[in-house]
Amino acid sequence: MSQVLVTTVPFGDRCSLPIELLEENGISFVINPLNRKLKEEELAELVGDFEVLIAGTEVISDRVMANGRNLRLISRVGVGLDGVDLAAARHRGIQVSYTPDAPAPAVADLSIGLIMSLLRCTHLSNLHMHRGLWNRYFGKRIQESTVGIIGAGRIGMRVLHLLVALGVKRLLVHDTDPAVRLRCPEGVEWVSRDVVLEESDAVSIHVPLTGKSRNMIARDELLRMKSDAVIVNTSRGGIIHEDDLADVLEEGYLGGAAVDVFTNEPYSGRLCEVERCLLTSHMGSMSVDCRTQMEIEATREAVRFLTGQALESTVPELEYEIQRLAGS
Amino acid sequence: MSQVLVTTVPFGDRCSLPIELLEENGISFVINPLNRKLKEEELAELVGDFEVLIAGTEVISDRVMANGRNLRLISRVGVGLDGVDLAAARHRGIQVSYTPDAPAPAVADLSIGLIMSLLRCTHLSNLHMHRGLWNRYFGKRIQESTVGIIGAGRIGMRVLHLLVALGVKRLLVHDTDPAVRLRCPEGVEWVSRDVVLEESDAVSIHVPLTGKSRNMIARDELLRMKSDAVIVNTSRGGIIHEDDLADVLEEGYLGGAAVDVFTNEPYSGRLCEVERCLLTSHMGSMSVDCRTQMEIEATREAVRFLTGQALESTVPELEYEIQRLAGS
Repeated sequence: MSQVLVTTVPFGDRCSLPIELLEENGISFVINPLNRKLKEEELAELVGDFEVLIAGTEVISDRVMANGRNLRLISRVGVGLDGVDLAAARHRGIQVSYTPDAPAPAVADLSIGLIMSLLRCTHLSNLHMHRGLWNRYFGKRIQESTVGIIGAGRIGMRVLHLLVALGVKRLLVHDTDPAVRLRCPEGVEWVSRDVVLEESDAVSIHVPLTGKSRNMIARDELLRMKSDAVIVNTSRGGIIHEDDLADVLEEGYLGGAAVDVFTNEPYSGRLCEVERCLLTSHMGSMSVDCRTQMEIEATREAVRFLTGQALESTVPELEYEIQRLAGS
Repeated sequence: MSQVLVTTVPFGDRCSLPIELLEENGISFVINPLNRKLKEEELAELVGDFEVLIAGTEVISDRVMANGRNLRLISRVGVGLDGVDLAAARHRGIQVSYTPDAPAPAVADLSIGLIMSLLRCTHLSNLHMHRGLWNRYFGKRIQESTVGIIGAGRIGMRVLHLLVALGVKRLLVHDTDPAVRLRCPEGVEWVSRDVVLEESDAVSIHVPLTGKSRNMIARDELLRMKSDAVIVNTSRGGIIHEDDLADVLEEGYLGGAAVDVFTNEPYSGRLCEVERCLLTSHMGSMSVDCRTQMEIEATREAVRFLTGQALESTVPELEYEIQRLAGS
């Protein structure tokens, strides 16, 4: 019987070090046989006798944990904990670790690229050129644009610094934690969420998924934006209401949107039909260096656990508290 | 009979000031009735009795000028002079003005966006998602990449500064003018064109089209690049050999390419069939602010000419010399 189930995919794809770490330590493991994000019931069936999950963004509910009779550690490759029922894990004596810093540079990089693509309509021109259509689109340069960030944590703060470096015209920031304001670079305007929505040419979302943030951007919020503004979500699916976004874009409102994360992944919903929506397949953390770093960190934590060493990146109490308060 | 033929399109689309400038000065004008880039023979037919052309990138050959019996000024909206036979213009006593600085910020902005899209494969993921395919692509962050710039003039130098601001890992620059080296920011590596091609993860081209730069990047140069590297051309069509690029990409070599400029525009050639090629429709200067600035500057020059004032942005002798030496 193997000790570790690796549910996240890809794993060890560009750098084999995570796999070598397991092998060197004589740890037996199985990699997700379906090679895609597992559904709750699939994981509940697979979890069996494994002691450790090296996990992705799949749902790890109380029901999954109940089936994992030997499960003692969930080591998340990444930062979001929306998939993990932390209270249930604690109740069952299952520890949870994560890699909170590793994905941030890659997600920030993708976000900047998506903002720049949307503002210049390159995604639209590319779709049309590949159909033989030559339409020249006017766009906005980042330096003539007002960009708004909702959520300035590990990732949002990096996006913010990159935008400052690029010379963005005006930078609006909203975060529910007032302490974040002190960490913002000079020149940034600290405003309400509504002001971010109303005054930005591009809005980028960087908040965790909780009961409070789910559907935070729905029809009303989208219509609050400027008619030619664009919105980017590289955080978690469900924070922008997908069907509302499809509706609003289909009605001709907004300049465009970029969505990397979806309520159900792999995604194949209505946004696939909307040309003005730039879609990517949850690739935020998929830069070679960050993904490798995340896999190595999560694997090291699994090795520590199985070789009797102290864990180094367990989820802090604050995350349990946030999840409890948001009731997600 | 009108005095001015505006061949460039769009014109006065996002800001009507250029049109107002002409009207306020009692200048009669006609805007390109075909609403697309004119072919040489079309322009030769249209040029008629006009005194001034407010021109785009179309070919303004000796044959065109021979037909323009009253033509006295070509006022280029933009910077590239590859379309204008400068020697013929001089021979016929036709002055040539341009707007060398106005497009640079917009072209640099587009170039950065294209580099970032290519490095993260967002263009490819977007094409696939719109066909219902969920493929997660590994990419490189700009901060883990070596980027090479060929040509560090007005535009290339801006691209270079933006890349420094973004924290690119390594920045290689080549320019045929050794004096450019002194203007490069610290930390940039001044190398041969071959080293740019061989060591970069992303190459961006920023040279004028001349007899020497035509087909500067053909099969041999593309195969000199790393097998997963990407290349961006926002300068002029024909600098990268289009069919060679299509061949190399179809053979599975290179991570991707982004092409904004083509030998014949509107373009509908083989690259339209190549998914890994990100295509845009000559939109480098198409940011609202830069395009407006270019149109206003070129129109002001036309107004100066027709109201007996001194011209302020005639093409300098150096450009005549460059064209003569390159034999383009």
